[in-house]
Amino acid sequence: MEDRLADASIEFWYEFASTYSYPAAMRIEALAAAAGIRVVWRPFLLGPIFAAQGWRDSPFNLYPAKGRYMWRDLARITAALGVPFRQPSRFPRNSLLAARVALVGEGDWIHRFSRAVYVANFGEDREIGDPSALAEILERLSIPAESAIAAAAAPEIKQKLKDNTDAAIAAGIFGAPSFLAREELFWGNDRLEEAIAHAANR
Amino acid sequence: MEDRLADASIEFWYEFASTYSYPAAMRIEALAAAAGIRVVWRPFLLGPIFAAQGWRDSPFNLYPAKGRYMWRDLARITAALGVPFRQPSRFPRNSLLAARVALVGEGDWIHRFSRAVYVANFGEDREIGDPSALAEILERLSIPAESAIAAAAAPEIKQKLKDNTDAAIAAGIFGAPSFLAREELFWGNDRLEEAIAHAANR
Repeated sequence: MEDRLADASIEFWYEFASTYSYPAAMRIEALAAAAGIRVVWRPFLLGPIFAAQGWRDSPFNLYPAKGRYMWRDLARITAALGVPFRQPSRFPRNSLLAARVALVGEGDWIHRFSRAVYVANFGEDREIGDPSALAEILERLSIPAESAIAAAAAPEIKQKLKDNTDAAIAAGIFGAPSFLAREELFWGNDRLEEAIAHAANR
Repeated sequence: MEDRLADASIEFWYEFASTYSYPAAMRIEALAAAAGIRVVWRPFLLGPIFAAQGWRDSPFNLYPAKGRYMWRDLARITAALGVPFRQPSRFPRNSLLAARVALVGEGDWIHRFSRAVYVANFGEDREIGDPSALAEILERLSIPAESAIAAAAAPEIKQKLKDNTDAAIAAGIFGAPSFLAREELFWGNDRLEEAIAHAANR
């Protein structure tokens, strides 16, 4: 029983430009720890997935009523959660470099870095597409910024992000956040509890 | 205090072709009763709203990965809720006549009729666009079928459905189910509890 739980894991598929990934990123480690399961952080890019659907922008920009509602809903969710929220002056922001840097920290500081990027983007209206903003985030977390950002340009890291995005498509993922637990797909911050219960085989 | 609660209400905006409106329709009266609030059933049509966004079909058909996930998600939700589910052989079904008939029963049997239409569409794979299927539903509910269906063709009823759809757009509604509670908009079956709490001013 303990062995099974120690082995149980949930894959957290997220994109730094995705608004509802923010509360999920802030909540997932505590919920998973309480359930005795491990989180595998899997950043990917929604851009290619949206482009394949004919969208050249976020659906929240393409469909204004949906976008207005989403910002209001996100304000309510973050207020209830007690995490900072400020509607970003630019949306969506370029998430490519942040996703690559996150992969440099895989198995190590990826979760701390990812949460900090979300807070910067949706809590502090900072330009997470800028290398300087990412360097500042890394430094605040006591992660060597220069080497992490340099490592993010390595072909293996670029390939890893492409592979993640391809794997997301192959798994039927069409939006973020998504969770994969024992081959079952769950979409949206609202499904996090259910996905964790499924991962824990409850 | 009791007066305030007796006056509190929630508007339930739904469309008979909308999959996630099904669990919301099955749940809302019990949840509202427990919170001491009244439900105002407001059927409307998503067709004109989707058409204005450039969609000529359900987004669940236009975006197949999203559609495949939705059916799996709905199967999980209905199983957890203990209501029948069978993936309809046709989707979306024409909901125009059902919505008009529902409005004939406004303030009376609209909630019973609406739940039965959802069960027929998503639990029994029945053709809710057919007058004969609607007549059968009405008869099972001991509602005079012939007169209800005849009344649905009255200009006032047709106008009422158009007015509901216009009012939905004016309220910022872009999908179903939606809930309006004290001028706050909530979208999706997942937000029903939050909407009811807001309506009850908790």
